Amino acid sequence: MKMLLIISDGLGDVSCPDLKNKTPLEFGSFSNLDKMSKEGINGMMDPIRPGIAAGSDTAHIAILGEDPYQYYNGRGYLEGLGTGLRPGPEDIGFRLNFGTITDDKIEDRRAGRDPYGLDRLVQDINDSVTLDVPFMLKVATGTRAALILNDDNLSNMVSDGDPHTVFVPPHKIHDLDGSEEAKRTADILNEFSAKATKVLVGHPVNQERREKGIMPANFLLIRGAGKKPKFQTFQEKYNVAPACIAATALIKGVAKCYGFEILEVDGITGEYDTDIESKADATLRALDKYDFVFTHFKATDTASHDGDPKKKINMISKADYLVSRVMKGVDKEDTIVAFTGDHTTPCMIGDHTGEPVPIMFWGGRVRSDSVSHFDERSCPKGNLGRIRGVDIIPMMMDYAQKTKKFGA
Amino acid sequence: MKMLLIISDGLGDVSCPDLKNKTPLEFGSFSNLDKMSKEGINGMMDPIRPGIAAGSDTAHIAILGEDPYQYYNGRGYLEGLGTGLRPGPEDIGFRLNFGTITDDKIEDRRAGRDPYGLDRLVQDINDSVTLDVPFMLKVATGTRAALILNDDNLSNMVSDGDPHTVFVPPHKIHDLDGSEEAKRTADILNEFSAKATKVLVGHPVNQERREKGIMPANFLLIRGAGKKPKFQTFQEKYNVAPACIAATALIKGVAKCYGFEILEVDGITGEYDTDIESKADATLRALDKYDFVFTHFKATDTASHDGDPKKKINMISKADYLVSRVMKGVDKEDTIVAFTGDHTTPCMIGDHTGEPVPIMFWGGRVRSDSVSHFDERSCPKGNLGRIRGVDIIPMMMDYAQKTKKFGA
Repeated sequence: MKMLLIISDGLGDVSCPDLKNKTPLEFGSFSNLDKMSKEGINGMMDPIRPGIAAGSDTAHIAILGEDPYQYYNGRGYLEGLGTGLRPGPEDIGFRLNFGTITDDKIEDRRAGRDPYGLDRLVQDINDSVTLDVPFMLKVATGTRAALILNDDNLSNMVSDGDPHTVFVPPHKIHDLDGSEEAKRTADILNEFSAKATKVLVGHPVNQERREKGIMPANFLLIRGAGKKPKFQTFQEKYNVAPACIAATALIKGVAKCYGFEILEVDGITGEYDTDIESKADATLRALDKYDFVFTHFKATDTASHDGDPKKKINMISKADYLVSRVMKGVDKEDTIVAFTGDHTTPCMIGDHTGEPVPIMFWGGRVRSDSVSHFDERSCPKGNLGRIRGVDIIPMMMDYAQKTKKFGA
Repeated sequence: MKMLLIISDGLGDVSCPDLKNKTPLEFGSFSNLDKMSKEGINGMMDPIRPGIAAGSDTAHIAILGEDPYQYYNGRGYLEGLGTGLRPGPEDIGFRLNFGTITDDKIEDRRAGRDPYGLDRLVQDINDSVTLDVPFMLKVATGTRAALILNDDNLSNMVSDGDPHTVFVPPHKIHDLDGSEEAKRTADILNEFSAKATKVLVGHPVNQERREKGIMPANFLLIRGAGKKPKFQTFQEKYNVAPACIAATALIKGVAKCYGFEILEVDGITGEYDTDIESKADATLRALDKYDFVFTHFKATDTASHDGDPKKKINMISKADYLVSRVMKGVDKEDTIVAFTGDHTTPCMIGDHTGEPVPIMFWGGRVRSDSVSHFDERSCPKGNLGRIRGVDIIPMMMDYAQKTKKFGA
């Protein structure tokens, strides 16, 4: 049997005044989600625990099967892995923004959100900066970048250089736990920051940016120190070969830690313009080759962060199309599909909250129930009840008979 | 107040094509289960966790109150205890089958499933084989037996001699963890196997079996090494005297570890032909004497393993009769009854799966709900919601006011 997990990021919501006090899932018309709901079994899912607002990283760690309280070690490593860097198991990773500093104070944390020339800046930093340890800097989406420090005696217990606000100087990085490794890591990062700034200030790229009316990218804001969460892969735990279709670096990073092969798919962007047709094609192709496919769709969360419930409805329609293609394209008897979000992101709030998310399982031998609408007010009446993120993979593996019983 | 826990083994199921895509509980007509459901409070129960297919041993450890991930140490000790052997707390137990070997290969793992003369074979092995440690072999149901090695310096971390298939030689037993105790245990078992084989081959019983056209019982297949799971008894934890009515050795073994007195009841067999009248009589009698009675009914699981949904319906009718006798025979105000299964065993699959099982509590001060059918699609709508195996005993003790509050 094949297994498909579809995550529509930030899918859950709460009453929106713009939608007659309904949620986007309740207000919109999503005939394929409703068909899957009617044929499947429905419920509500707390990514971590009731009332815990999960990040996309911790939510995906939980949904892919392990306890994030035990395993989560910060976002930087996952992000680096997801951008295509190949950190070693003991390396430390960081998230960076190119920012603009004027008179020693941060003027803009995103350098005008314009990535012009950043690849050349990164290239020159990689070529000309030397530190006590090898490092690798890489451009990520927008004005973001990822940094990996390659050494076995470093620590992720260091503060952010990014003050997360403007019109203040950047922070000096310091250790958080007094350990030698953390002190050394902080020293190396402060040295990296000083040396990188020398490359950036007065670099021809920044001359060109100024001439084009773009804010200069003359400082690297460092945050999100992380190290590898070390859990069993799907192959080790279930003897199952998994593949992931996602555009978002962080999600790809989490999936890689679980042993997923990341499939390259044309036209998927992690943005509103993502090619859902291409994503659906790739998902169905992947199901021919892999036991377990995880398809991630980011744009529902983006619309939520943008506070735009009508846009969120448009984006859920893309997920609805994906689901229609899946229902037509797979052998229902021999496939288990789980559809849910990774957390609730209310459009009215523009950030993640701790409310549970609707979830449904479809195909195989699932016990169907009387729910026929996939939304926040119908799914709690479903026969699944209220489950947790960490339950999803064991349930899918059990439905697909990929597990041995515990005991005799 | 009195407490009665009735477990109908393997009770849960999924859609059966032979039953118009209903489950046995949904398809059959069980007026007494439905009456108890209507008067009681209903829900769904995950023996261990959602998606985890539980063995009968781990499920019963959980349902009787402790976490099997913490306490489960293999099946052999429990099985030995259940057959009536009296192992010490550090002894190691094993499950055995009498099998038939021809030309050094296993021809039949059950010696034709005929127990003729096995008691005499066991007697002669007990009398004539000597090992470095005292041991005790005992016939269990059918062609099964239990073995206890009586010593404090042994380990359950040894492999099975039983290859779990036919037309191959039996396996040599080896240690699984490199410990001295495990190596010693493996050596003793290999020596036991060789010496027992000498007794069996050419034994008059096997001559008689051949003359009667029965396969000879000329080899002992050893598996399921286990040691005692050490948890608090009901007496220690709740100051409650418990009794168990069960025919299955494994269940009796688990119950004994929890301090249950095992009641001997005529006519209960653990098979389809079990005398349910006798089991009902014994249950009601036991409730006069003991605070807590656990009545186990095996045949629903047997029908599921045999892949026979109509037989399962017949067997559920026996459980329905048991429930009718209970409802008539107890003082409802002063009795708490819990009725459920230990796991789901879909007839279509013939083995345990991880779906939750319907559960109901009846009597005393339970809050009733609007469910009036006890089955997989009705109970999820009940007011209990979705609970876990380890919740059952605390809930019963609480309903019966046998616990102290935690805190002040």
